[in-house]
Amino acid sequence: MRQMKLGKAFTLMESGPVILVTTRDGNKNNIMTISWTMVVDFTPQFALTTGAWNHSYAALRKHRECVIAIPTVDMLDQVVGIGTCSGADTDKFTKFGLTPVPGKRVKAPLIKECLANIECKVIDIVSKHNIIVLEGVAAYMNAARKEKRTLHAVGDGTFIVDGKRMDRKKMMAAKIPAGL
Amino acid sequence: MRQMKLGKAFTLMESGPVILVTTRDGNKNNIMTISWTMVVDFTPQFALTTGAWNHSYAALRKHRECVIAIPTVDMLDQVVGIGTCSGADTDKFTKFGLTPVPGKRVKAPLIKECLANIECKVIDIVSKHNIIVLEGVAAYMNAARKEKRTLHAVGDGTFIVDGKRMDRKKMMAAKIPAGL
Repeated sequence: MRQMKLGKAFTLMESGPVILVTTRDGNKNNIMTISWTMVVDFTPQFALTTGAWNHSYAALRKHRECVIAIPTVDMLDQVVGIGTCSGADTDKFTKFGLTPVPGKRVKAPLIKECLANIECKVIDIVSKHNIIVLEGVAAYMNAARKEKRTLHAVGDGTFIVDGKRMDRKKMMAAKIPAGL
Repeated sequence: MRQMKLGKAFTLMESGPVILVTTRDGNKNNIMTISWTMVVDFTPQFALTTGAWNHSYAALRKHRECVIAIPTVDMLDQVVGIGTCSGADTDKFTKFGLTPVPGKRVKAPLIKECLANIECKVIDIVSKHNIIVLEGVAAYMNAARKEKRTLHAVGDGTFIVDGKRMDRKKMMAAKIPAGL
């Protein structure tokens, strides 16, 4: 995994992939699957919808940090498995054969097997809407990975896999942040 | 366009498609392209990131309603065109050959050419983060449309088209809302 420019990290999230979010509480790592996310700023900042119904929420609120890890299509069963059991009684890294890797800026671990990881600080919790606002502080890409197609949850138990990519860079030149 | 169950409308948005958002101010319709969105509740509620940098924002704030219209891959040039000009000096429905259709619950128009439309009320504006929270009040699907693949903006001027769909309904049965 190689560190990437923080200014590019929003492009990992803008397409709306299902993500894994790791937290660490004491010496206990946990992971949750989240599909309700959006970019809120290029810096980057992200919003997630989560709340007390997720076991990870307490750790997120207490330590105010997490890692966004981006899985790919070959990890679908892990993604669904992680989303359908609880960290209250399960060590999800062990159960799903994932490898925690220490980050630089936060105590929550990166996930080695994922395509990309973004270390994040919680900058606000909008309790009224169960929205957590995160600031990305370091980002990493596993460029050596062959499978790069991410997953998009539909919400009915099906998932859309990334298909072909279409280029409109010229038409959009005025709207794309410098350095992308 | 046929009305669909409101309880299914979140599934139009959960995968993170690029959307068009229409507003109406007096007798003037406008459209903006938005890719920073998320579901915040099944009811459904959605969040968008937007602000005064979008001409539509004033109408959204004033009238507190809009329509989320979901375009497909064959509409990519319209989607990018709409996102790179301003309603301040352009009638986007005319310029991009789109047909406004009156909604039932809001004055902002549906877009006939889109795959789906969701009439929405603004229920909150979280100014600090430029987040607008919407509640869907009516939803419509153009089921007769052949092209159903939506677009996902990457943020660098490229777009990912929906690829194949994978089914994990059985694994996720306990997490899927009733009636889906």
